[in-house]
Amino acid sequence: MKRAIVILSGGLDSTVCMSVAQKSGFQIFPLTFAYGQRHSKEVEQAKMIAEFYNCSNRHLIVNTDFFKDIGNSALTADEIDVPTDRVFEQMDKEIPVTYVPFRNAVFLSMATGYAEAMGAERIYIGVNALDYSGYPDCRPQFIAAFQEAIKTGTAAADRGVPIKIETPLLHLSKAGIVKMGIQNEAPLHLTTSCYKGGKKACGKCDSCRLRLKGFSEAGVKDPIEYEAI
Amino acid sequence: MKRAIVILSGGLDSTVCMSVAQKSGFQIFPLTFAYGQRHSKEVEQAKMIAEFYNCSNRHLIVNTDFFKDIGNSALTADEIDVPTDRVFEQMDKEIPVTYVPFRNAVFLSMATGYAEAMGAERIYIGVNALDYSGYPDCRPQFIAAFQEAIKTGTAAADRGVPIKIETPLLHLSKAGIVKMGIQNEAPLHLTTSCYKGGKKACGKCDSCRLRLKGFSEAGVKDPIEYEAI
Repeated sequence: MKRAIVILSGGLDSTVCMSVAQKSGFQIFPLTFAYGQRHSKEVEQAKMIAEFYNCSNRHLIVNTDFFKDIGNSALTADEIDVPTDRVFEQMDKEIPVTYVPFRNAVFLSMATGYAEAMGAERIYIGVNALDYSGYPDCRPQFIAAFQEAIKTGTAAADRGVPIKIETPLLHLSKAGIVKMGIQNEAPLHLTTSCYKGGKKACGKCDSCRLRLKGFSEAGVKDPIEYEAI
Repeated sequence: MKRAIVILSGGLDSTVCMSVAQKSGFQIFPLTFAYGQRHSKEVEQAKMIAEFYNCSNRHLIVNTDFFKDIGNSALTADEIDVPTDRVFEQMDKEIPVTYVPFRNAVFLSMATGYAEAMGAERIYIGVNALDYSGYPDCRPQFIAAFQEAIKTGTAAADRGVPIKIETPLLHLSKAGIVKMGIQNEAPLHLTTSCYKGGKKACGKCDSCRLRLKGFSEAGVKDPIEYEAI
């Protein structure tokens, strides 16, 4: 059975991504990063999702407190407020303060190392270039450049088995992601998206609002609980 | 004063690399990775080298036990023996068991994140494509591909200040690196290269033998102590 690393945050996108890898017949090795987030809810949800897919015994959780050490992002630094008031058009034009510097490169590098060690031939990552993400390390050009780094810099490529990055959500809208998740019977009820990480989702932060907009446009009720909408 | 991140392992190459960054007039932010090496001697030497260059207060030491988690390398896994008997010609042809999967990509990703957070415009890394290194992630093609990932995936590049990877040792022989270190008055007496990490260098592992060969060809006495040569 062929193997794939799936970068699993516990959020909506990475869980839908996992459902794609599973449907494609890979033996899944989930990889979760605990990086000084304001909350550990994501990691707990990631564990439940791995359990749902019967791969808890292959689930690697990596401490990347490094991101907290370097600070400079609202997702890791305590002194920066998580934004709740940006209009969607504004999100599209600027790099948000929730940008964690070069985060996806760190994730992809570690996923590649893990893939080399496990003999996996695919890395699934739920990056998305649409829907106002605004993160430079979610762009197709970045993914293509990183793929080239894998081709030139790994032992696996030398052995003729280059590891391939799979980005099934890259060009989907949030509504499209929701629909794909429903179609693949992904456990959307186990996912979390809220930046604030409370027991219930806040319904107000950028991430909650994008999620709700996605479900609304897909014509599906979001199965998770919200404090207020 | 312009800023540079210097990836500093405590070894010969990264220390000479640091001397180049210093001569080039950068304010240096040393970045050291403690990654489940068989020994912590390297990290201790890195601290002394940062002190030598008066930048201890900017020295970031990152725990990357991740590499131990994924295993699969003689440098991090306890059950694989460090090789001591390969002839130099053999080293040139195969990927050594001391290869840590995609290590330099993980290092460069984190260094780029650190550079973004600190507003640094250079990353110095002491990779070397000559002298039988055999590591896929030390090749010029890999560095070029990674540079492209930085150009396409960072906020710094969007602001018109792309972070540049500097590899001053890329095409030097070990003897050339020793000579450059002497010329720049680098603290070679504080460096360590031995894979075994004892109080004195073993003089027998691949790394010790390459180092000794380099000093010998440069016509300089190695200032560190050896158990046996």
